[in-house]
Amino acid sequence: MALGMLKAAPAHAYNLEGKGNGKRVIILGAGLAGMTCAYELTKLGYNCTVLEARERTGGRCWSIRNGSKHGELDKPAVTASFDEGLYFNAGPSRIPHHHQLTLHYCKELGVPIQVYNNVNESAYYYAEGKGPLSNKKIRNREVHNDIRGYMTEMMAKTMDHGNLDAGLTKEDAEKVIEYLMAEGGLDIDKLYKASARRGYLESPGAGNRPGKIADPNKLADLIHSGLMDPDFYNVAEYTYELQMTMFQALGGMDQIAKALEKKVAPMLKMSAEVTAITNLPEGVKITYKDAKGEQVINGDMCICTLPLPVLSNVNNNFSPEVSKAIDFISYNQTGKIGLQFKRRFWEEDENIYGGITHTNNDLTQIFYPSYDYLSKKGILIGYYNFNEKAERVGELSFTDREKLALQKGRLIHPQYDQEFERSFSVSWHKTKYNQGGWAVYSNTTRKDYYPALLKPDKNVYFAGEHLTYLNAWMAGAFESARSVVASLHGRVTEARVAYPDTNVKG
Amino acid sequence: MALGMLKAAPAHAYNLEGKGNGKRVIILGAGLAGMTCAYELTKLGYNCTVLEARERTGGRCWSIRNGSKHGELDKPAVTASFDEGLYFNAGPSRIPHHHQLTLHYCKELGVPIQVYNNVNESAYYYAEGKGPLSNKKIRNREVHNDIRGYMTEMMAKTMDHGNLDAGLTKEDAEKVIEYLMAEGGLDIDKLYKASARRGYLESPGAGNRPGKIADPNKLADLIHSGLMDPDFYNVAEYTYELQMTMFQALGGMDQIAKALEKKVAPMLKMSAEVTAITNLPEGVKITYKDAKGEQVINGDMCICTLPLPVLSNVNNNFSPEVSKAIDFISYNQTGKIGLQFKRRFWEEDENIYGGITHTNNDLTQIFYPSYDYLSKKGILIGYYNFNEKAERVGELSFTDREKLALQKGRLIHPQYDQEFERSFSVSWHKTKYNQGGWAVYSNTTRKDYYPALLKPDKNVYFAGEHLTYLNAWMAGAFESARSVVASLHGRVTEARVAYPDTNVKG
Repeated sequence: MALGMLKAAPAHAYNLEGKGNGKRVIILGAGLAGMTCAYELTKLGYNCTVLEARERTGGRCWSIRNGSKHGELDKPAVTASFDEGLYFNAGPSRIPHHHQLTLHYCKELGVPIQVYNNVNESAYYYAEGKGPLSNKKIRNREVHNDIRGYMTEMMAKTMDHGNLDAGLTKEDAEKVIEYLMAEGGLDIDKLYKASARRGYLESPGAGNRPGKIADPNKLADLIHSGLMDPDFYNVAEYTYELQMTMFQALGGMDQIAKALEKKVAPMLKMSAEVTAITNLPEGVKITYKDAKGEQVINGDMCICTLPLPVLSNVNNNFSPEVSKAIDFISYNQTGKIGLQFKRRFWEEDENIYGGITHTNNDLTQIFYPSYDYLSKKGILIGYYNFNEKAERVGELSFTDREKLALQKGRLIHPQYDQEFERSFSVSWHKTKYNQGGWAVYSNTTRKDYYPALLKPDKNVYFAGEHLTYLNAWMAGAFESARSVVASLHGRVTEARVAYPDTNVKG
Repeated sequence: MALGMLKAAPAHAYNLEGKGNGKRVIILGAGLAGMTCAYELTKLGYNCTVLEARERTGGRCWSIRNGSKHGELDKPAVTASFDEGLYFNAGPSRIPHHHQLTLHYCKELGVPIQVYNNVNESAYYYAEGKGPLSNKKIRNREVHNDIRGYMTEMMAKTMDHGNLDAGLTKEDAEKVIEYLMAEGGLDIDKLYKASARRGYLESPGAGNRPGKIADPNKLADLIHSGLMDPDFYNVAEYTYELQMTMFQALGGMDQIAKALEKKVAPMLKMSAEVTAITNLPEGVKITYKDAKGEQVINGDMCICTLPLPVLSNVNNNFSPEVSKAIDFISYNQTGKIGLQFKRRFWEEDENIYGGITHTNNDLTQIFYPSYDYLSKKGILIGYYNFNEKAERVGELSFTDREKLALQKGRLIHPQYDQEFERSFSVSWHKTKYNQGGWAVYSNTTRKDYYPALLKPDKNVYFAGEHLTYLNAWMAGAFESARSVVASLHGRVTEARVAYPDTNVKG
């Protein structure tokens, strides 16, 4: 019944009926999924315990600031020494405007949000060592408007000659040509010439300063430098998840985790590393290690939010289907480096406020901070890369990662030399309690393995972004937590309905 | 010499040398241009007086909040009664990231800024009474991605058939096809089908919720409803001035005016309406009216920032060229209405956070507020229109404007009925001390009339957005102010250089 209600109501309505009446739920992992489960189950009257291997909550929802500690599987722990007030989000850094549940929790937990400026026409494309535009930083606005211009020009010309394979009526074709001229900024002869859309050599100003426009890049040059390659040219902005409006939590994304932590603080057992999960006939037994040694805790049910590469190394008596799913679902490699600079040269010298520079080298992306604009210092994300590139960079020592970020970054921003202060890097696939960025499904793994983890294995439920179609997003953690809480609660309350001595309503 | 330095330095460097030594400058108008002149001239040692006709400073840089007073030429004064903390910007509401001087003054004056979210794929297009998509609200993301899809599909098909008039090599053509497929989100057969980029009927979520995508709109329907018309489809986002990143002053754009006001407070004479500007052989005489009657003030020089339609009705002894320029340069008609709602239904029900809905009716645009996201109440800009539409709506009474905004607005947001509280509208061309939105030049007026106002008419200088290529923008006011201050100061200091008893350096 509770589940029935849930379907009909909007995503953020979550009025489950019935009571948990003190049923003991052991939750593994104090990331967003685990803490949300604890928070919602406690509202329903369950007795929750959350086991977290780390000394901090939040999991991947982690902002690096002064004092943040991090080690990797093959590297000793380091401590961040950024200036007070500066931070970068090592994990999720963006909230799409349609992730209602993430925004709902921000509101419910009192976490203020601000715009994450994902789209910035002022940031650059940088093609290292490729083609005629090699090693030039080119503003996004130049690339976007040049390509738009050439494409619409070719199409308008073809239509003028009656050669377009489109089956348009003559009237509609005229409308399309009008559209193409506006879309591409074509001149009256339907040619793409330089346009103010791609920026100025000299800005327009007062008096006799109408501004001076540069010539466009040549189409062949754009092609030969790879700027139209699907893996470089940024169509990412078109994707549903990356369309503006985007948000971030004010003061760091970890403010969401910290706000949840406050709600579930009494239930948290920190520095508790789970070593075994055992289904019992009437409940579940969790074995974990803490400072005092091996501990055991029993519960009626368990919700396991451990990332699958971590869970894969925890002893268990799961079904063969569940074990296979845990082993076969892939996670990606990904990493970020934060670089603190003593001057926001990207703003002061280059008019870049937030947004992303795209490169074809191992940096992949540079993220400019979307907070504290016009202030003195700032932290750039010096690279944010994936897969092979992230793997290569992840292999480096912390010092060599910094070296790489500076060496490649100064090709774009020579100010790096003068202004750099310090760095901090995180490779998620090299990080002990993560061992991956996020779940990446193929059609096969989605079809063959994913379903096994959507049901409880006896008394153990599974939750986290990996059990959604919102992989990598905080919304995945929240949606999954709610889904599992509803499922667990449905089982508990329906069981109780069989007994007349319960107080379950409707 | 001062001017020479200025040219070489970046826009925000402004280290004029030499001293004004108490020269008396009368500045007409306490908008951004006038106050910036006073602020900069005072730094140089001039003795400034600023005459302002209104009881408030800022001119068009005006945020409407509780207590704001406004009358129009044919209408009695009204007072805004919005809730505390709510406001809308009746004048400029956006700062492009490349308007360095505007951002420079925000920094110098200590005005914090925040992102103005000009691009939002979640807002709507709404074609009233036109074609098959008539009276449907369609998300920007649907329109943008459908059109991109169809255009790239047509072009890719034509290229496949070898019919594109482009003169591309075979290799380059292959690259272009790859690009088109990525750009349009085409499938493997180069066809545009529904894509997640245009949004979901059912959002993806946890467990068995992969999300459900709707069919695209038909190309013919988009054409026949005018959604590809250049005056409706939003290519405005491509223009240099409206590209993200954009900013606004935190707490209302008037914070910039108020911060300037603090700097020049001792020089301000408020409620002083200029009635005559007279060049004298050795200075200037300004006649104005205040509460006590007609007043006269004399100065060495004058900087007149009055909008030209206002200046055109002030007695003067200007040269014929200057008089002609004042009369012949056009201003546009424009107006906005702020609508206070007791619930931010656009956020809560429709996931719209900032950005703009475009209509083909008299509303033209609805602006959603880019501040206080997730809070309770909010003010929408219910219309922001220009020219004929603004003229039509400007003719209406305040009450009838509200009626129109609600009647047309509820077609898009039926929640208007339930949630509306109160309104406040401003028609700039109907406003006494403006009589227009901003200067709009044709090639002819720019060539034939503009230059006359760039030089002083004897001892009277002219400043304001109308004397720049940055019309409508606050940057125009700032750039013009600096340009005129440099010009005036150059004249003063160069004159002094002729006399050995001055302290002018270098």
